[in-house]
Amino acid sequence: MKTTVGLLGCGHVGSGVAKMLLEDHDFINEKMGWPLALAKIAVRRPQADRPYNPPADFLTTDPYQIVGNREIQVVVELLGGLEPARTLALEAIESGQHLVTANKALLAHHGREIFAAAARHKVEVLFEAAVAGGIPIIRTLKEGLSANRFRHIFGILNGTTNYILTRMTRDGLTFQAALAEAQAAGYAEADPTLDVEGLDAAHKLILLTALAYGTLPALESLHVEGITRLTPEDIAYARELGYVIKLLAVSARDEDGRLEVRLHPAMLPRTHILAEISGPLNAVLVSGHAVGDVLLNGAGAGMMPTASSVLADLMDLARTDRVNSTSRVPSLGWSILRDEPVKLMSETKTAYYLRFTVADRPGVLAAIAKLLAERGISLAQVIQKNPLPGQESVNLVMLTHLAQEKNLMAALADSDRLETVLAPTRLIRVETRL
Amino acid sequence: MKTTVGLLGCGHVGSGVAKMLLEDHDFINEKMGWPLALAKIAVRRPQADRPYNPPADFLTTDPYQIVGNREIQVVVELLGGLEPARTLALEAIESGQHLVTANKALLAHHGREIFAAAARHKVEVLFEAAVAGGIPIIRTLKEGLSANRFRHIFGILNGTTNYILTRMTRDGLTFQAALAEAQAAGYAEADPTLDVEGLDAAHKLILLTALAYGTLPALESLHVEGITRLTPEDIAYARELGYVIKLLAVSARDEDGRLEVRLHPAMLPRTHILAEISGPLNAVLVSGHAVGDVLLNGAGAGMMPTASSVLADLMDLARTDRVNSTSRVPSLGWSILRDEPVKLMSETKTAYYLRFTVADRPGVLAAIAKLLAERGISLAQVIQKNPLPGQESVNLVMLTHLAQEKNLMAALADSDRLETVLAPTRLIRVETRL
Repeated sequence: MKTTVGLLGCGHVGSGVAKMLLEDHDFINEKMGWPLALAKIAVRRPQADRPYNPPADFLTTDPYQIVGNREIQVVVELLGGLEPARTLALEAIESGQHLVTANKALLAHHGREIFAAAARHKVEVLFEAAVAGGIPIIRTLKEGLSANRFRHIFGILNGTTNYILTRMTRDGLTFQAALAEAQAAGYAEADPTLDVEGLDAAHKLILLTALAYGTLPALESLHVEGITRLTPEDIAYARELGYVIKLLAVSARDEDGRLEVRLHPAMLPRTHILAEISGPLNAVLVSGHAVGDVLLNGAGAGMMPTASSVLADLMDLARTDRVNSTSRVPSLGWSILRDEPVKLMSETKTAYYLRFTVADRPGVLAAIAKLLAERGISLAQVIQKNPLPGQESVNLVMLTHLAQEKNLMAALADSDRLETVLAPTRLIRVETRL
Repeated sequence: MKTTVGLLGCGHVGSGVAKMLLEDHDFINEKMGWPLALAKIAVRRPQADRPYNPPADFLTTDPYQIVGNREIQVVVELLGGLEPARTLALEAIESGQHLVTANKALLAHHGREIFAAAARHKVEVLFEAAVAGGIPIIRTLKEGLSANRFRHIFGILNGTTNYILTRMTRDGLTFQAALAEAQAAGYAEADPTLDVEGLDAAHKLILLTALAYGTLPALESLHVEGITRLTPEDIAYARELGYVIKLLAVSARDEDGRLEVRLHPAMLPRTHILAEISGPLNAVLVSGHAVGDVLLNGAGAGMMPTASSVLADLMDLARTDRVNSTSRVPSLGWSILRDEPVKLMSETKTAYYLRFTVADRPGVLAAIAKLLAERGISLAQVIQKNPLPGQESVNLVMLTHLAQEKNLMAALADSDRLETVLAPTRLIRVETRL
């Protein structure tokens, strides 16, 4: 038994999904205890060079080798756009196949039709990849925060515009210059309209609204305003006032319980965490009546982050396939718990902050540095201050490069034996991966 | 048909869970299309005054009115500590009841026994509330990011110590003074040992490690170091070096694939997002091979945030009860999609940034301010600069208090008709809820 998957489309995201299904197969299998198998990929141009090139025998130009094929349980729609995505998605649902999609435009425009068809045919429609790329905001709203009445959701939902605004804010670029740079860096399409006019983010906002408030508003009922008219001048004034300008998606209930859904440039206090989301990142701040504020942030687009979300949906469906009701997801998310030793602290490598309490005499620093060097520990920075009047000891602060804990400890044992070291040395590890 | 729930314990978190089950019943029912019913609450002292006092007929002093009761499908263990929590949890599992728990100590110490018993008896053990309070990090690791091989997880998992460190960092307090203040503010227990020595965070770290790496390390195999020895001096030096000190939980694979699990004070670059998590908040930064870095942050403790996580687990079990395999969670997380109008943008209230391009003449500011005032719009801040040499126009920047969009637009329509206003006025909305 296994869960079999067909892909419609193999562009950027499709390449990532194919790569994970083919390369991470053993890992996924170990985690679920149930195989997730790629069967076919429908593409227009089999010969095209892709970010990841699946073996040629997976490729077909006929989508109906996937849609309606009884041996394929899940259809992953990664075509983008409204047609033929809508027709193929509905045909898949009508033939009893589950649908996974990253297509926010499709769901924002035709969501009612698609979700209704899925309910009628008792299949699932999952779309974690459709909003905020790799950030698992769909599951968070559907499941993690499911018991909350949401006060408001604020989102930075489009990486292209956030990149452009970051460059305009940090470096004073004009919109046109920042856009050109984003296009050169691959963060913006040749035709950037959907992004810079706010439509892409508005599609995502519609889906967040559906998840939070149980209603799927029409695009036409929303105020949607892009970033094309923002000037460096406005950004400079905003800064002067203590604000940063972001393209902000808002879905909220006002004090009278009315639904507020809008997408436009907004000034945020410079110290607010959303103001600090920079470059192509996305973020969603959810405020619920019980949980208070929760923020999620991460990559809002990109081949692998988006594929990560598609795979989460596929694993969800495979887990549903695997069992009936209980233990769809085992308690710890793994089918088997392994025994695995934890690396000894003594073998861990980090950088270190060291504070020596030393006598204010010549040669002390040299003696300590020599002991450290003997253990292979090199220094990134040293600070020594003059002693305070009346004090005999001074602080000698050192920041090391990466070192192994046992070497560091051995060096400190040596140095603490020096007569000029007057107290046990204080140590704080420095996370160099941050 | 319904899913029936019994609570063991009704302290801080138990009160929140009882409150949500009793007060948010209609909302939860609407969302799931399936009732989640509170049956009984076992407490030691029925007369005690609680943050939320459930009706007396829910209370019993006999836990076996819940554990082993065939009419109760889910036992929520909120006793804390190892015994009698362990015995009651195992008895519930053995009698076929699902277990929901917020008890990290229990799972860190007896997780193997408990998860094995649950697998044997085909029931679920859910524990979203056991790590990082309201932040849905358990589901995120189990489901949202399930396809990722995790490179590392960094966590700020204890709100008490983060509050203390924040006070020490921002205001130069000693550990003892900050602890006393945290106790007075309700952020630290009378006996703060579990928190300040790092044990509470270590228990949570063990669970994150199990979710990320499929192994449940023994507490004794971890380096666990609290914050009691940190001094204001160290914190000041860290700042001087560009760092902030946090109590950091680390679960990672090193370059050789070995498991690194440790909990100790660590210096983080001051500009890193984790360094900015302040006060009693928690945060988890997850790095996966596909998704890259994802950060979740929010309330790590507290009655309602923790109850939010318990309710997410209960709704998960109820949804499993409700259906067999498909549509455990409907696509949009709601059983029925409603039609609901979106408030018109013209009726929306925000604050506004306005930039007028005006002639450099006396009385212009007064004329504009008058038009705004006539529409009930009041100003928070005004900036007017001298014109650049050779320029005839100047920028007049205003920040308004909350105003209704239609009033603001009407005022701008008026002001843009002034002969001294030389170009259409630029407007950016200011999010006052941030």
